[in-house]
Amino acid sequence: MRLARALRGGALAAGLVLVAPAAASATDGVALAHAYRERHAARILREYADLLRLPNVAANLADVRRVAETLRDRLAAHGAAAELLELDGAPPVVFGRLDAPGATRTLALYVHYDGQPADPAQWRTPPFEPVLLTAAREAGGVARPLPADGEPVDPEWRLYARSASDDKAPLGALFPALAALAEAGIAPTSNLVFFFEGEEEAGSPHLGESLDRYRDRIADVDTWLFLDGPVHASGRPQIAFGVRGVTGLELTVYGPARPLHSGHYGNWAPVPGRLLAELLASMYDPDGRVAVAGFYDDVAPLGAAERAALANLPADDEQLRHELGLAETEGGGAPLAERLLLPALTIQGLASANVGTLAQNVIPATASANLGIRLVQGNDPAKMQDLVEAHIRSRGFHIVRDEPDLATRRAHAKLVRVARATGYPAARTAMDLPIATRIAAAARAAGAASGLGEPVLLPGMGGSLPLYLFSERLGQPCLIVPVANHDNNQHAPNENLRLANLWYAIDLYGALLTMP
Amino acid sequence: MRLARALRGGALAAGLVLVAPAAASATDGVALAHAYRERHAARILREYADLLRLPNVAANLADVRRVAETLRDRLAAHGAAAELLELDGAPPVVFGRLDAPGATRTLALYVHYDGQPADPAQWRTPPFEPVLLTAAREAGGVARPLPADGEPVDPEWRLYARSASDDKAPLGALFPALAALAEAGIAPTSNLVFFFEGEEEAGSPHLGESLDRYRDRIADVDTWLFLDGPVHASGRPQIAFGVRGVTGLELTVYGPARPLHSGHYGNWAPVPGRLLAELLASMYDPDGRVAVAGFYDDVAPLGAAERAALANLPADDEQLRHELGLAETEGGGAPLAERLLLPALTIQGLASANVGTLAQNVIPATASANLGIRLVQGNDPAKMQDLVEAHIRSRGFHIVRDEPDLATRRAHAKLVRVARATGYPAARTAMDLPIATRIAAAARAAGAASGLGEPVLLPGMGGSLPLYLFSERLGQPCLIVPVANHDNNQHAPNENLRLANLWYAIDLYGALLTMP
Repeated sequence: MRLARALRGGALAAGLVLVAPAAASATDGVALAHAYRERHAARILREYADLLRLPNVAANLADVRRVAETLRDRLAAHGAAAELLELDGAPPVVFGRLDAPGATRTLALYVHYDGQPADPAQWRTPPFEPVLLTAAREAGGVARPLPADGEPVDPEWRLYARSASDDKAPLGALFPALAALAEAGIAPTSNLVFFFEGEEEAGSPHLGESLDRYRDRIADVDTWLFLDGPVHASGRPQIAFGVRGVTGLELTVYGPARPLHSGHYGNWAPVPGRLLAELLASMYDPDGRVAVAGFYDDVAPLGAAERAALANLPADDEQLRHELGLAETEGGGAPLAERLLLPALTIQGLASANVGTLAQNVIPATASANLGIRLVQGNDPAKMQDLVEAHIRSRGFHIVRDEPDLATRRAHAKLVRVARATGYPAARTAMDLPIATRIAAAARAAGAASGLGEPVLLPGMGGSLPLYLFSERLGQPCLIVPVANHDNNQHAPNENLRLANLWYAIDLYGALLTMP
Repeated sequence: MRLARALRGGALAAGLVLVAPAAASATDGVALAHAYRERHAARILREYADLLRLPNVAANLADVRRVAETLRDRLAAHGAAAELLELDGAPPVVFGRLDAPGATRTLALYVHYDGQPADPAQWRTPPFEPVLLTAAREAGGVARPLPADGEPVDPEWRLYARSASDDKAPLGALFPALAALAEAGIAPTSNLVFFFEGEEEAGSPHLGESLDRYRDRIADVDTWLFLDGPVHASGRPQIAFGVRGVTGLELTVYGPARPLHSGHYGNWAPVPGRLLAELLASMYDPDGRVAVAGFYDDVAPLGAAERAALANLPADDEQLRHELGLAETEGGGAPLAERLLLPALTIQGLASANVGTLAQNVIPATASANLGIRLVQGNDPAKMQDLVEAHIRSRGFHIVRDEPDLATRRAHAKLVRVARATGYPAARTAMDLPIATRIAAAARAAGAASGLGEPVLLPGMGGSLPLYLFSERLGQPCLIVPVANHDNNQHAPNENLRLANLWYAIDLYGALLTMP
């Protein structure tokens, strides 16, 4: 707010002197942000909780627009020239620009303000009514009120709500970081571009079009920072230089045209769950390696810097297995970071009639599976879908795109409807770029200040972001700078953010906004 | 009513002579019942409609008790010694006994007077307000008033109401059949036991206890006739000599202790849907034959009569496949009736996270399958569950009974929780018993008189009824003697009874009550 006034000229006219960018160091920025968030912890939490109360499922345009307008107004309140970049039928991009006096670099900050769908029936508390717990629920955390001003705040507390981590957490930290600088009368060392997308969880279907249409707004960006995702599973900060791409397929296998009594027809009518199980089982070797022909063929090799980074990664897989209750992991126990540099084919969902108390004595009419595909450098999304479809055909299945009619069902004993998800390829940024070392230094300073420790530098993240649109199409390198705790239940019920990670984020943004 | 008076001695005292049982033949009984129902068609329908107006969902004890009391009173009015057999918390059994002079055989007639739940919102007309249509609604039938006395009655008319078929239809025919004999002064050729259960649709949870507690009432029963279910899909009468038993298992396979982001962990964390698919696929050969060791070992062989009956069954599988949109059926296209004489293992439900619009990019924590097991003569329910569990163990799985703790999860790479369903064994009555041939002859006579045609004799039905309680535990053979049309919407909205099937039922009971 103060920075806003200053940059609009009012403060300057009143005689206040802005410290020149070159005089600020990363450490200063960390210290400023750190002190600010210690003083204002309760208010920061309240304002963040307000943001979490806004439903943000991308499929509901009215909801996401309300979030967008709120963010535009908050950006403007912090002095940015803020606007909504519109495209027909898409949630708007919240765009802001905050030029710094004398800055020679433009840093773009990407956040997505939409969230994954949330089925309230699967949540312990309603997804858009944030609840503060004294620890993770699994660790015995109990609900407590948001703290009053001045009340001590335990960094182990967790705020539960949809998008608490993914991906409103950076928003909850960015505004306090800007306010910290403004309060101290310090300008950022870079021109800042704010780019908040509203349909990332829906696969960013309009992002490319948006970047094309509003290319003038971002033409001078030097580097993109993607503020999204969790830090390292060890709890240490993390910076990632690449992401996997993503796509998927939904399969529906057909049995009888209507559900049949399993007594009157069991042993005679084909059971779609059996056909689906056989098909899915055929896609994997016993150790989880994908048995679809050609699935690993296009994987691009790693460079020397990436191989070195891999070798330096913390060996925490054993701890992670312990925490997740896993006796074994796929790929013969190969390290997680190495496995993330390969494409994945994951059974993300299964459904056929009912299980549990709702189970009935039926031969269901259909059985469905949702398959997620993660892609690495070298993989083309459509080609990977083609490979899976070729495998499906090799198992004797006839593929249709729409609900089949009776004649089609009568013609094919193995019939599957395949719906291809949209998607996008992977992206990777070289780890030896100069900006990379400055960003790593900022993370190091924030990690030390917040107690999260030394950052982990990761050649490639497992998650997906449409970075190829920036790195490949605009030629602007991208780094992923996550802040959320790794055990945040991202994309699942009971998503949460550990406060220590929110504090780290504020310290980190203080450092990044003031890095040399 | 008249028989009632006669048997109470009033009519005898007035000088009427009852024809001795041996003088009646099956044909006589059919002719008597047939003539009676032609003369009194309108009244029979009215009295049946009155019975359909009584709500009978087993969960509502007050409702079913009112039906029970009505039936007890009707039995008494037809001369039976009628009573309600009570068990705490259960709908009463309506019990009646009508001994015939000189009879050397006791025939028990089982009917269930409770009905499936009926959601009025899903019905075209209220489920407990019977409506007469001029044909099936799908065939263009329109509503018409119940006929007046003497008005012609079309056998294609249908009466719509909950339980019109399942299972009040036998009640709507039994009382007229008793009245027909009484009007002619003919006594049944068997002592009759009436056993009307009130919670069959709830799974008969108290039936065994009822039979134990009131064993003295039924000690002399020679044969049970189960008056329930639909006739053959061809429209021909049907008699079934057995039912499959039923049990099941619910499997829950474990992945990570909490759902994980499929990007951040995909290729590393074990996917429960994959483990479940592999396990389920291993349970079957490609043609659907169960690959669980020993699954078919205990199947009791068929006798010559059963094999002959199978060979004589109508070949309507092709029509059924056409109707159900099936290119192939399991077991290499073997006939349905033959496949029903084998135990079945059916994947009745599958669930893991979500599919479709609710699908998420997760590695789910669990994947579940509901497996139904149908049993045939020779199968022990617990042993069949044991065999499936042995198979599960042979695939490297560790079985637990409760939700596993983290330590258990860490100890077993393949971990499954198995919940065993309750259940009961199959029952089969030899088709060459002397009583079986007499019952078949009665059905043949009634099929001819009513125009339904030659009866289909089925060695075993696919569905399950707890007949083992009678055949195994009491040593009293059971036959299933259904009367309803096969397209009666049993268990569904808009249940109905075709009048031709009610007329067949009256003719049939006339024949059965007078068979030699």
